[in-house]
Amino acid sequence: MKERLTIVKVGGAVVEDEQQLAQLLKDFAAVEGRKVLVHGGGRKATKVAERLGIATHMVGGRRITDADMLEVVTMVYGGLVNKQLVARLQACGVNAMGLTGADADIIRSHRRPPLSVDGVSVDFGFVGDVDRADGDMLARLIEAGITPVVAPLTHDAQGNILNTNADTMASVTAVALSCHYDVTLIYSFEKRGVLANPDDDESVIPTITRPIFEHYKADGTISGGMLPKIENALAAVDAGVSRVLITLATAIDGKSGTIIKK
Amino acid sequence: MKERLTIVKVGGAVVEDEQQLAQLLKDFAAVEGRKVLVHGGGRKATKVAERLGIATHMVGGRRITDADMLEVVTMVYGGLVNKQLVARLQACGVNAMGLTGADADIIRSHRRPPLSVDGVSVDFGFVGDVDRADGDMLARLIEAGITPVVAPLTHDAQGNILNTNADTMASVTAVALSCHYDVTLIYSFEKRGVLANPDDDESVIPTITRPIFEHYKADGTISGGMLPKIENALAAVDAGVSRVLITLATAIDGKSGTIIKK
Repeated sequence: MKERLTIVKVGGAVVEDEQQLAQLLKDFAAVEGRKVLVHGGGRKATKVAERLGIATHMVGGRRITDADMLEVVTMVYGGLVNKQLVARLQACGVNAMGLTGADADIIRSHRRPPLSVDGVSVDFGFVGDVDRADGDMLARLIEAGITPVVAPLTHDAQGNILNTNADTMASVTAVALSCHYDVTLIYSFEKRGVLANPDDDESVIPTITRPIFEHYKADGTISGGMLPKIENALAAVDAGVSRVLITLATAIDGKSGTIIKK
Repeated sequence: MKERLTIVKVGGAVVEDEQQLAQLLKDFAAVEGRKVLVHGGGRKATKVAERLGIATHMVGGRRITDADMLEVVTMVYGGLVNKQLVARLQACGVNAMGLTGADADIIRSHRRPPLSVDGVSVDFGFVGDVDRADGDMLARLIEAGITPVVAPLTHDAQGNILNTNADTMASVTAVALSCHYDVTLIYSFEKRGVLANPDDDESVIPTITRPIFEHYKADGTISGGMLPKIENALAAVDAGVSRVLITLATAIDGKSGTIIKK
């Protein structure tokens, strides 16, 4: 039987809220066994870019990563946010190590080709779509007692850092490690889980499988931005991840939230 | 007999000059056997601080690292400079991994107490004086085929990143690894080596030992800023490093420069 490993993905909003962050770090430190933290940091990057006089360009709700913005996200995600998390986890007794996809070549990507948005070709810039994650190297680090803290940056093996979505980083890391471990992937966000009634925080759907998802999708219970999130979770489960938990950032102990499994 | 390992320390000026940097990366990639790169990045940090409207305070030629400047050096050293070096080394076929002292707890420090400068007590801020480097963990990473790329940042094990001199990072790393390897530490800088006549670039002193150093120090051949540099090199040699080479950033192949040894 494989050893258990927990991967927690935490968004930028939590990282920037001292109270939520302190709670998350405490809870993450208390997670038993092998673990990995994957973080975002979007709002902090936007703030630093503003202070540097660099405009944030968005198309269809998505950030364009031009050369200036790539420098900012490399500084903020790979430096500021990542190293502060690492130092604070060290203080909690977790032997954390910050990693981008470039470090030890753990996650390689290629630059996203221009996409058609509303009939117009849009170049998203230095955005990386993942080609492969090196689960063997990650497992080797983890077996040395290290807890990887992964920033949402990858590389193209041609010398360029690329900006990659943090949810994607979490799922590719989870899938790559599922050959070595019994993996639980936890997406922490601002709700208590997937809600049957968006106005009722108590209406958390405890378990979602493919048939349950299809049922709730057909009757409109699950809609909007939650659809791709659950599709991605189901894809991770199909690719070998044992279970995906969608829960509050302050409730990563596995006792609440929505479990997505086979 | 121990396996050979080469540690190259490169300053901020080289990192920021594209031509010199490209040459250095090529030469570093060509270094045979196990290796480590330690980098600075001071000028880039000053530039980013200026753009962010953060004043750089200096006392007695030394930077004061206040809370704002600590954020800047964490971003620039740990993020921008480090990750760009890692991505470019990956493109040269070197399996580089960026590390600060906080990552895997490799270099721990304590905040420097206020010092007396010209009779006035000066607090240098978030500057870390090194307590210990973990040669065992570094060796474990190196044996996994990884080439560490070390940024001049440490941590105090209480959740704080601290700013540490890059020359110091290189020497403590070299000493910590000397239990495991036959270590050559290369300090690259703007001269061809230690010069007997500062106006004559051809007057490189090929070898310096403690007695030779004392001789040149007494007769004034070696003076000024070169004195602490050589004292540090001799201390590293006394602590187990096999040899220290002081040479041009574009000549790290060991065929020129000044060798400091027992």
